[in-house]
Amino acid sequence: MTSFGAPLNQPLSGNEMPRFGGLATMMRLPTQTSAAGLDVAFIGIPMDIGTSNRPGTRLGPRQIRDESRMLRPYNMATGAAPFDSLQVADIGDVPINTFNLAKNLDIITAFYDRVLAENCVPLTLGGDHTLTWPLLRAIHKKHGPVGLIHIDAHADVNEHMFGEEVAHGCPFRRAQEEGLLAEGKVVQIGLRGTGYAADDFDWCRQQGFRVVTAEECWHKSLVPLMAEVRQQMGNTPVYISFDIDGLDPSVAPGTGTVEAGGLTMPQGLEIVRGAQGLNVIGGDLVEVSPPYDPSGNTALMGATLLYEMLCVLPGVHHR
Amino acid sequence: MTSFGAPLNQPLSGNEMPRFGGLATMMRLPTQTSAAGLDVAFIGIPMDIGTSNRPGTRLGPRQIRDESRMLRPYNMATGAAPFDSLQVADIGDVPINTFNLAKNLDIITAFYDRVLAENCVPLTLGGDHTLTWPLLRAIHKKHGPVGLIHIDAHADVNEHMFGEEVAHGCPFRRAQEEGLLAEGKVVQIGLRGTGYAADDFDWCRQQGFRVVTAEECWHKSLVPLMAEVRQQMGNTPVYISFDIDGLDPSVAPGTGTVEAGGLTMPQGLEIVRGAQGLNVIGGDLVEVSPPYDPSGNTALMGATLLYEMLCVLPGVHHR
Amino acid sequence: MTSFGAPLNQPLSGNEMPRFGGLATMMRLPTQTSAAGLDVAFIGIPMDIGTSNRPGTRLGPRQIRDESRMLRPYNMATGAAPFDSLQVADIGDVPINTFNLAKNLDIITAFYDRVLAENCVPLTLGGDHTLTWPLLRAIHKKHGPVGLIHIDAHADVNEHMFGEEVAHGCPFRRAQEEGLLAEGKVVQIGLRGTGYAADDFDWCRQQGFRVVTAEECWHKSLVPLMAEVRQQMGNTPVYISFDIDGLDPSVAPGTGTVEAGGLTMPQGLEIVRGAQGLNVIGGDLVEVSPPYDPSGNTALMGATLLYEMLCVLPGVHHR
Amino acid sequence: MTSFGAPLNQPLSGNEMPRFGGLATMMRLPTQTSAAGLDVAFIGIPMDIGTSNRPGTRLGPRQIRDESRMLRPYNMATGAAPFDSLQVADIGDVPINTFNLAKNLDIITAFYDRVLAENCVPLTLGGDHTLTWPLLRAIHKKHGPVGLIHIDAHADVNEHMFGEEVAHGCPFRRAQEEGLLAEGKVVQIGLRGTGYAADDFDWCRQQGFRVVTAEECWHKSLVPLMAEVRQQMGNTPVYISFDIDGLDPSVAPGTGTVEAGGLTMPQGLEIVRGAQGLNVIGGDLVEVSPPYDPSGNTALMGATLLYEMLCVLPGVHHR
Amino acid sequence: MTSFGAPLNQPLSGNEMPRFGGLATMMRLPTQTSAAGLDVAFIGIPMDIGTSNRPGTRLGPRQIRDESRMLRPYNMATGAAPFDSLQVADIGDVPINTFNLAKNLDIITAFYDRVLAENCVPLTLGGDHTLTWPLLRAIHKKHGPVGLIHIDAHADVNEHMFGEEVAHGCPFRRAQEEGLLAEGKVVQIGLRGTGYAADDFDWCRQQGFRVVTAEECWHKSLVPLMAEVRQQMGNTPVYISFDIDGLDPSVAPGTGTVEAGGLTMPQGLEIVRGAQGLNVIGGDLVEVSPPYDPSGNTALMGATLLYEMLCVLPGVHHR
Amino acid sequence: MTSFGAPLNQPLSGNEMPRFGGLATMMRLPTQTSAAGLDVAFIGIPMDIGTSNRPGTRLGPRQIRDESRMLRPYNMATGAAPFDSLQVADIGDVPINTFNLAKNLDIITAFYDRVLAENCVPLTLGGDHTLTWPLLRAIHKKHGPVGLIHIDAHADVNEHMFGEEVAHGCPFRRAQEEGLLAEGKVVQIGLRGTGYAADDFDWCRQQGFRVVTAEECWHKSLVPLMAEVRQQMGNTPVYISFDIDGLDPSVAPGTGTVEAGGLTMPQGLEIVRGAQGLNVIGGDLVEVSPPYDPSGNTALMGATLLYEMLCVLPGVHHR
Repeated sequence: MTSFGAPLNQPLSGNEMPRFGGLATMMRLPTQTSAAGLDVAFIGIPMDIGTSNRPGTRLGPRQIRDESRMLRPYNMATGAAPFDSLQVADIGDVPINTFNLAKNLDIITAFYDRVLAENCVPLTLGGDHTLTWPLLRAIHKKHGPVGLIHIDAHADVNEHMFGEEVAHGCPFRRAQEEGLLAEGKVVQIGLRGTGYAADDFDWCRQQGFRVVTAEECWHKSLVPLMAEVRQQMGNTPVYISFDIDGLDPSVAPGTGTVEAGGLTMPQGLEIVRGAQGLNVIGGDLVEVSPPYDPSGNTALMGATLLYEMLCVLPGVHHR
Repeated sequence: MTSFGAPLNQPLSGNEMPRFGGLATMMRLPTQTSAAGLDVAFIGIPMDIGTSNRPGTRLGPRQIRDESRMLRPYNMATGAAPFDSLQVADIGDVPINTFNLAKNLDIITAFYDRVLAENCVPLTLGGDHTLTWPLLRAIHKKHGPVGLIHIDAHADVNEHMFGEEVAHGCPFRRAQEEGLLAEGKVVQIGLRGTGYAADDFDWCRQQGFRVVTAEECWHKSLVPLMAEVRQQMGNTPVYISFDIDGLDPSVAPGTGTVEAGGLTMPQGLEIVRGAQGLNVIGGDLVEVSPPYDPSGNTALMGATLLYEMLCVLPGVHHR
Repeated sequence: MTSFGAPLNQPLSGNEMPRFGGLATMMRLPTQTSAAGLDVAFIGIPMDIGTSNRPGTRLGPRQIRDESRMLRPYNMATGAAPFDSLQVADIGDVPINTFNLAKNLDIITAFYDRVLAENCVPLTLGGDHTLTWPLLRAIHKKHGPVGLIHIDAHADVNEHMFGEEVAHGCPFRRAQEEGLLAEGKVVQIGLRGTGYAADDFDWCRQQGFRVVTAEECWHKSLVPLMAEVRQQMGNTPVYISFDIDGLDPSVAPGTGTVEAGGLTMPQGLEIVRGAQGLNVIGGDLVEVSPPYDPSGNTALMGATLLYEMLCVLPGVHHR
Repeated sequence: MTSFGAPLNQPLSGNEMPRFGGLATMMRLPTQTSAAGLDVAFIGIPMDIGTSNRPGTRLGPRQIRDESRMLRPYNMATGAAPFDSLQVADIGDVPINTFNLAKNLDIITAFYDRVLAENCVPLTLGGDHTLTWPLLRAIHKKHGPVGLIHIDAHADVNEHMFGEEVAHGCPFRRAQEEGLLAEGKVVQIGLRGTGYAADDFDWCRQQGFRVVTAEECWHKSLVPLMAEVRQQMGNTPVYISFDIDGLDPSVAPGTGTVEAGGLTMPQGLEIVRGAQGLNVIGGDLVEVSPPYDPSGNTALMGATLLYEMLCVLPGVHHR
Repeated sequence: MTSFGAPLNQPLSGNEMPRFGGLATMMRLPTQTSAAGLDVAFIGIPMDIGTSNRPGTRLGPRQIRDESRMLRPYNMATGAAPFDSLQVADIGDVPINTFNLAKNLDIITAFYDRVLAENCVPLTLGGDHTLTWPLLRAIHKKHGPVGLIHIDAHADVNEHMFGEEVAHGCPFRRAQEEGLLAEGKVVQIGLRGTGYAADDFDWCRQQGFRVVTAEECWHKSLVPLMAEVRQQMGNTPVYISFDIDGLDPSVAPGTGTVEAGGLTMPQGLEIVRGAQGLNVIGGDLVEVSPPYDPSGNTALMGATLLYEMLCVLPGVHHR
Repeated sequence: MTSFGAPLNQPLSGNEMPRFGGLATMMRLPTQTSAAGLDVAFIGIPMDIGTSNRPGTRLGPRQIRDESRMLRPYNMATGAAPFDSLQVADIGDVPINTFNLAKNLDIITAFYDRVLAENCVPLTLGGDHTLTWPLLRAIHKKHGPVGLIHIDAHADVNEHMFGEEVAHGCPFRRAQEEGLLAEGKVVQIGLRGTGYAADDFDWCRQQGFRVVTAEECWHKSLVPLMAEVRQQMGNTPVYISFDIDGLDPSVAPGTGTVEAGGLTMPQGLEIVRGAQGLNVIGGDLVEVSPPYDPSGNTALMGATLLYEMLCVLPGVHHR
C-alpha cells in the first residue's frame, strides 16, 4: 500500500449518488491525471484503427466506464476487497493519434513507462488489440520477459495484415519476436474459428505457447485448466490480455471479429479468478465495440473482467 | 375447476388469428376486469420507479404480453395442459401511481387482496422487484407465511437504498421482517456479482435462507437441486419470485441491474419445472426492461417462465 | 470574469485527445465539485421518476455529456466565444433520490442555492421536467420573479398528475402558484398535441403567459417572434427552459412524451440565439431519453442547445 | 350518435392508469368484438405479405395501438372533441391469412361489409397498402363510388407486380378498374421518387386523378391545397388513405418502401385537418413497419394521423 | 473435383481487400449465374411470406452473405480445407414470387433441378423453412429418398397452418407424405417449446423419425449423439436442414419463432461436424431474420454453419 | 454512348427478382472489375480510419449498395432516364489499406487514374471524406483544375488534425494547396456548427470559395442558389462532393460528425438537381456510417443522391 494513513479511494456508493449519476469513471472511482501514489490505475486506450473487420472499439473505454457503474467494491464470490488495501484510480485515456496507427506505438509505450515508473499496476480498457504490443514493451522494460495469459478467439500472431506489421492481428507475433514474453510461460485460451492454415495456431505451439482451443473448453469448468496454468507460471510476473471475443458471441455480441462457439461467461470468470496467487503485474480487456451491442452488456462484461483482474492482484485483501 | 360445464378459456389459436394479430393479452387469453370465476389470473404491474440502475421495467408487462403470442397451450416437455383444467384470464394491470413509489404498497396489496378473495392464483408480470413486498403481504393474509423460491442475481435484502425502505433491492428484507416468509422454507438461487460485504448474502443465511450462488450452479443441471428444494418445502404453500436477472445476461439482456455469469435458460426452466408437485400459490416474473432488448426475446423468456409457473400449479392436467 | 489573470477553462481540443477519448464531461471541460470561482456551471440532474410515459431521462445527463464531445469552443454562426470571457466547468450531478420523487424538491433547491451563492449561472442537463420547479425556487431566492422562455410540446401546468403535485407535467403550475415567475414575462413556444380540454392551454393565457403553439411556428423563421420576445422581456432576468420534445420527433426522437408536428432544429436554434441581449440567468435542457435514440443525436441536439444558451449569456465575448 | 343516454366510451385517462399500463388498445379505448352500436371503429389489419421491399407491417397495428397511449381525447389545435359526440371503440384485427395473400381480398371485404352494415365508420390500422383495395370494395357497396384523398410516395397503380394483381403497389389500379372511385374526385399527394417511366404517374392523370407531387409541396403550407381539395370533393363521400411513406423518412423512418424528400409532419397534419367539412366515410393509415423504427415514433405519427381522421368525421363536436 | 488444372475459386483474402470491402457474396467467393462447373453452390432464397410470427427472413440471404466476410478458407478445428479440392461459388438468389407463396414451390424446385443437373451440391441461405419442401422435391428427383438431419425448435410437421398446406411449419409433413425422405433415416434435434398436443412430436415418432428434444441435449456434448446418427444414416444420401431457431435465442436472437432453452453454439457445431463421413448431398440454413439482431451475429452464426456443412461434404481435403 | 448496338446495362427489375434478392450491387446493376466500356462507374471506398469522431463509414459502401435496391431507373421528378443513354456498372471497391491511412492516397489515386483512362465518370460511395483529396488528384490529371460543389456541415480545410495532414477534415485544404480546384469555382453549402475561430470558414472565403452557411439556407428553396451556382461554374468541369452530414441529422442520423441545423432532404435534392446543365465529371457521397442508423435510411438517402448525380451527367437522356 502506497498511502500513509490517508483513506484509500472507494467507488462512489449507490447510496451517495444514483448509479446512473456522477461522472462516468471506471467503477465510479476518483480520477487523477497521473499514476502518482497509485497501486493500480485504470487506463483507457480509445483506438480502433487497428481493427480488420467491424469498427467501434474506439468507443470501448467510454462505454466500459459508463456500464461499470454497476460494480460494487466487494467480490461476493471470492471475498476479495481490493479497495481495502490498494489505492486505485482512473487516470483517463492515452491521447492516441487516431489518424496514424504506427505512431501510437511510441505514444502508448511512453505513457505506460510513466505509469510503471510509479510502481503502479496498469489495467487497460481497450481499444483494439494492437495496443498490447507497445504496452508489453513498457512492461518488459520494467519487469523483463513476462508470462502471458491470453484469452482470445484468435492467436493474434499474424506475420502481417495487408502487408502491415502494426495491426490488431499481430501483437503477440511482435511481442515474441522482440523477446517480451517469458519462455514456456504463454497460454492462449479460447482460440477457434477459421484461418488460412493449421499453421495459424502451430506457430504458437512452435514457440512453446500452450494453445487451449475453445473446443477443448466446451461443456466444462476451466478450474482444472487454471490449476495447471498456475503451476506453469510459478513466480514469473504474469500479464493478462483478455480479448472479449474469446467469449461466445452470445455473451459479448459487441465486438468486431466475431467467431462462433466461444467461452461462456462463467468460464471467463474462472480464468481470471484462477490467476489468483500469481504475480499478476498488469492486464487489459480489449475489443469491446459499443455500436454492436446497444444494451451495453458487452461493456459491462468487460468492466467485470477488469474488476476481477483487480481482485487477483497481489496484495488484495480478502474478507 | 371453478366453472360448471362452461368451456374454459383457451389461448387464441394461430389458426384463427395470426400470432401477430389480435389484442396483446397474455398468451392471447381473454381479458376480464376482475378475478371472479378464475383459477388463475395474469396481472401486470407496470412499474420501474423502484429501480436503482437502468429504467424501463414499466414497459415490461406490455412487452411480455406482446411476445407471449408465441406460446401455445400444451407444454411439450412436461405434458402439462393447463387450459384443460384451469380457468385462466388476463385481468390487466394494477393502476400504480408512477410518481410516488411508497403509495404503491397499499395499491398493490389491495389489488391482490381482491384477487385472492376470489380464490384465484396470481401470476404477475413485472415491473420492478419492489412489487413483491406488497404482493407478499396480500399472500400472507390469505395463506400465512409461505415458502419462497427466489431466483435472482441479487438477494434483495438491503436494509435500505439511498435511505429508503421501499426500493427494488429491499423486498425480501421487508418480507422477512414482517414475518411473511415461512421459516426454513426460503431458497435463493443464482445470487452473484459484487456487493459491499460478505454480509450481503450472510444476512440471508442467518435468517435460515438457503443461498445457492450462481457459481454453485455453473456447468450443471439443477434437477438435483430442485429435488432437494421439494424436500425442503414439503406441503407449505410456496411462492415463486423470478427476477429475470437471475439468468445470464446473454439470455436476458433486457434488464436493469445486470450481473455477469448467471443461469442458463435450461437451468431457469429446470427450476420452475422442478416446482412441480409443490403447493405453488402464486408467482411473479420481474425486471424485464424492454428498451434494453429490442429483439423482444427477454420478454419472451419472461413470458415462457410465467407459462411454466402456470404449468406447475396444483390441479393442472397432464396428457 | 471571476478569475484574475489565470487562464480560463477551455474544452479539451480534438488535437490533444481524440474526441472520443478522455472523460465524458460536458464539452470536455474540466470538472470541479463546487461552483466556486465559476461564471457558469453545467450541472446534471439524472432523474426520470417524474415522467408519465416512457422512462429513460435518468440517463440524459450521461449521454448529453458523452455526445457533447463534438462541440468546439467557437460559435461559427453567431461569433460567440464564451470561453474567452467566462470561467466554465462541469460540476457533476445533483445526488437525487431515485426512489422518492418528492424529496428531490429540497435536494435540488439546496444544490442550486449553493451554486447561486457563488454568483454562478447554472445550465442544467436533465432529467425530467419536474426538476425545473425546485430549480426555479432557488432562482427566485436569488433573482426574484424571473421571465421565462419555455420551449415545449406541453404547457406543463397540470393541477396534478395521478393526484400528485410533483410530476413532470406540473412544474410551471407550481412555479406560477408560488410567484416564481415575473408577470407578463412568460412565453411558451411549441405547444401542441392532444389534451383534455382547451383549458389545458387557456389557463396559461389567463395567467398572462404568451402561448405560441407549434402550428403558429410551422413553415417559417422564428427570428421575428424572438424580436418580440426580447421586447417583452426587457431587462428582467430570464430563465430558459427547453424541453427537447418541443422539437419535432424527427429531430429529437429520444424523448418520453412525444407529440407530432414540432419545431425544426433551425427554429430551436433561432429561439435560443434570439435570447441574445437578454439578461439570461440560467437555463435547462430536459427530457432527453437515451434509450429511444441509439444514435445519440437527440443528446447531441440537447448539448448543442445548452452550448447555445451559454453563448447568449451576458458577458460572452464575440469575435 | 347511436347511443341513447349511455355515456360514450372515453380513452382511459392517464390519471386512472399510467399511460404505459393497461391493455394496448387504440387510444386506450374499450374493445368490443363487433361494430354494433358504434359510430366509429378502429380496426387493425396485421398484414405484410403484400410488401415488395422491407417487411414488418404485419406488426404495425400492434405498435400503433401501443404508442397511441400518448393520445388524449381533445385536439388542442382544432378544438375537436370526438368522444363528446361519437361512440368509438377498438374492434380488434381482421383475421387475415398470412400465407395466402389473394385470399385476404374476400376476408377483408367481408369484415368491412359487417362493419359498414352497422353504419359504423371504419378507421384502419395497417398493414400494407394491399388492404385498401378490398376495403374499398366494401366501401363501394355501402356508399357507391367515393372520392379519395391518397397521401403516399407512390401512386400504387401498378398493372401488376411480379405478375401478380394483388400487391401493395396495385390497389388504386384495381379500385379504378372496378369503378370504386368517383370520377374527378381523386387526389394523390406526396408522389415522388424513381420509377420505370413517366407513365407511372401519367396513368393517374389520364384517369382524371389530381397528382400533387412531393416537389410541389416542398417548403410550404398545404392549407391552400386542401382548400382546393375541399372544393373538388364537394359533398361526395370521401375516403382517406394515408400511406406513412408519404411523409419524409426523417419523420417516418419505420416503413418499407422509403423515398427521399417527402412531406413534413406539419404538412401531414394540414392534409388531414384540411378534410374537415368533407363527408369523410372512412380512412386508413398504412405501411408502418415497427422493426425499422425502434423508437416507436413512426407508429405514434400513424396513431396521431388516425386520431386526426377521427377528428374530421362528420358529427364531431368542437369546443 | 470438376475442374481440370484450373485454379479453384478461393474466398477473397483479407490481405487483398479489407473484409468489409468488395461485393457481399457468400464467403467473398466469386459469383456465377449457373451451377455449371461447380462442385458446390451457395444459393439464397430471400423469402419470408411463409412465416407465422415475426417477419424478416427475406433479408436473411443478404445479411448472411454480408456477415460471412469473417470466414476464412481453413477450418482450424477440423482441418478441413474445402477450397483445396472443391470448386465453389455463390450463384445468387432464387427469383421467388414474394406475393404468392404457393407459386414458389415450382420456382424453387425448377431452380434446384437445374443446379442438381450440374452434379452440384446446393447449400442454401434461407429464407423461411417453407423452402425445404420444394427443395427436397428436386433432391428426391436426383437422389431418391434421402436421410435428413433436421435441427430445429419445431418439428415443422403441421398438417396445415391457417388452413394452408404451404407454410413454414409444414415442410416435413409434406416431404414425408410425398415419400421424399428415406425410411428410418430422419433425425430431428432440438425440438422443444409449446404446442397443441403431445401429438405434435408423436406424429414424427410414428413415422419412424428419431426425435431428440432440446431437453435431452441440455448440459452435454452432442458428439455421442452424432456417432449414433452416423450409424443410423450409413451410406444413404443425407440432407441437412438447420433452422437457426434450433439454437438458443441467446445465440441466435435474430429469428422469427423463438423458443426458450435451445442448443448452444458448440452443440450446433458438434452436430454439423458430426456429419463428417456421411454422404451429405445438400443442406440449408434457414430462418435468419436480420431485423431482430442488429449486431448481425445471428447471420454470422448461420454463415458459419453453412461453412461447416461445406467442410463435411464428401471429397473435402483435410490438412 | 460507348457501346455500339449492345443493350445498355439496366438495374435488375423488381419484376425479375424481388428488391431484397440478388447481389447487393449499386442499384442492382451488373458488376465488372474494370471501367472498360463504361460511361459511368459506381465505386466504393470502404474507409473510416480518417474519421475524427464516430467510426463506421468503412461499412458505408456495403449499406449504400444494399439500400439502393429501392431505386428504379427513371427519375419521376426530372424525367432523367440515365440508363437509356449511358453504360453504367458497379465496379466494386478500392482495395484500401485499413491499417495505414497515408498509403491510401496513392492507392486511391492510382485506382481512379485507371478509371479515368477509360473516359469513365466515377461516382463514389464513401467512406470518409479523406478520400476526396486523392480522388481529386486523379481528376486533376485528367481534367485540370475543376469546379467544386461541396455540400457539407464542415469546410474540411483544416491545416492538420492531431498533427496529421491526411484526415477527413483536411481534403479541401490539400486540394487547394495543390491547385486541384479551379479559381472562383468552388461553392460550399451547408457549413455550420462550432469551430475554433471565425477563421475556420474565412480561410475558404480568402481562397475565393463561395461559402453558403446552413443558416443562409434555412426555411427556403435552394433553386435560386443553384441558378447562381450554374452561372458561376459556366463550362468548367465540375466535381460534386456531398458529405451526408451536410443534411440535417434528422434526415441522415447515420454519420460520424453530426452538426445541428442542417439541410433538409428537399434542399439536398435541389442542389444536385440544380447541377443539371453543368459539365459534371464526377462525384462522391461520403460519410454514411451504418451503425448509427439501423433503419438504413441514411444509406438510402446517400444512394438517392448518387443516383441524382448520375441523372445530371452530360448526355443523360430525358423522357
